[in-house]
Amino acid sequence: MKFYEETISTNYIHKGKILNLKIEEVKLPNGKTSKREIVEHRGAVAILAFKDENTILLVSQFRKPLNETILEIPAGKLEIGEEPAICAQRELEEETGYKAENLKFLGKIATTPGFSDEIIYIYKATDLYDGTIGGDEDEFIDVKEITIDKLKEKIKNGEVIDGKTIAALGFL
Amino acid sequence: MKFYEETISTNYIHKGKILNLKIEEVKLPNGKTSKREIVEHRGAVAILAFKDENTILLVSQFRKPLNETILEIPAGKLEIGEEPAICAQRELEEETGYKAENLKFLGKIATTPGFSDEIIYIYKATDLYDGTIGGDEDEFIDVKEITIDKLKEKIKNGEVIDGKTIAALGFL
Repeated sequence: MKFYEETISTNYIHKGKILNLKIEEVKLPNGKTSKREIVEHRGAVAILAFKDENTILLVSQFRKPLNETILEIPAGKLEIGEEPAICAQRELEEETGYKAENLKFLGKIATTPGFSDEIIYIYKATDLYDGTIGGDEDEFIDVKEITIDKLKEKIKNGEVIDGKTIAALGFL
Repeated sequence: MKFYEETISTNYIHKGKILNLKIEEVKLPNGKTSKREIVEHRGAVAILAFKDENTILLVSQFRKPLNETILEIPAGKLEIGEEPAICAQRELEEETGYKAENLKFLGKIATTPGFSDEIIYIYKATDLYDGTIGGDEDEFIDVKEITIDKLKEKIKNGEVIDGKTIAALGFL
């Protein structure tokens, strides 16, 4: 079956720094109308950065929406018009200090298709070497190394809860 | 290192049906201030529902934020005050028509810690039997059965992009 929701009207509630919020009135397949609250986000990248065959880099970062410091793979938002692969190199260097000789696109995920259009492009980075730039001045990040096995353990015991980090392993 | 961002002020831009949007002014670890756009979401559940040892249920659903019909594991938002396990049984029945004799909590994910507080609680449902209720009248959903191997193939070739679906497999 093919379902579709036609947009009847769009009303922007907020146009912001990292996201917009709009409400769309839509026509449902049964002819009735409904409203959809939609967060527009320009997308992001996340990087499985391998220090060696079994060890990747994680970043520890305070996330205000959760009011918690959590462990994630390095990631960051796309600049307007930026190619995801360029963004991946930039964010890897900004967050970890490393650049990657080799960068391979693994796949993309829709983080929250129920309320947002955010897509995260996932990369595998190998043959890391020291970059030259420091971090984003408004980001406070600790870099850690972890083996893939240890990371899987931390996912199963609830120490790592970041969705993109857990999903990224599914592409290996 | 322990980082923290103290909230200086909170300003609600939108209080809606499925989400709220607020802007928080925060004090960064370096003493400067910044603004965080935060989407409040009351959380959700997602269910790996096993028809047999190797086969799970997927739902095909039009997602307005993506303007696309995508494949996902059954999922749905928590009602206010609802226990995640109760929600998982309810959503499984509403979306697929099945109830589960056995429901096991696998873990939780933060879908978008950069801009939202949404947490999805992931369950494994086994010993399915026919439920009695129909679906939500504003939801239009097709149910499909798929083997875990086939699903992994669809993730790697980009046919399945739903983050929670990909992440959920990491808990098995």
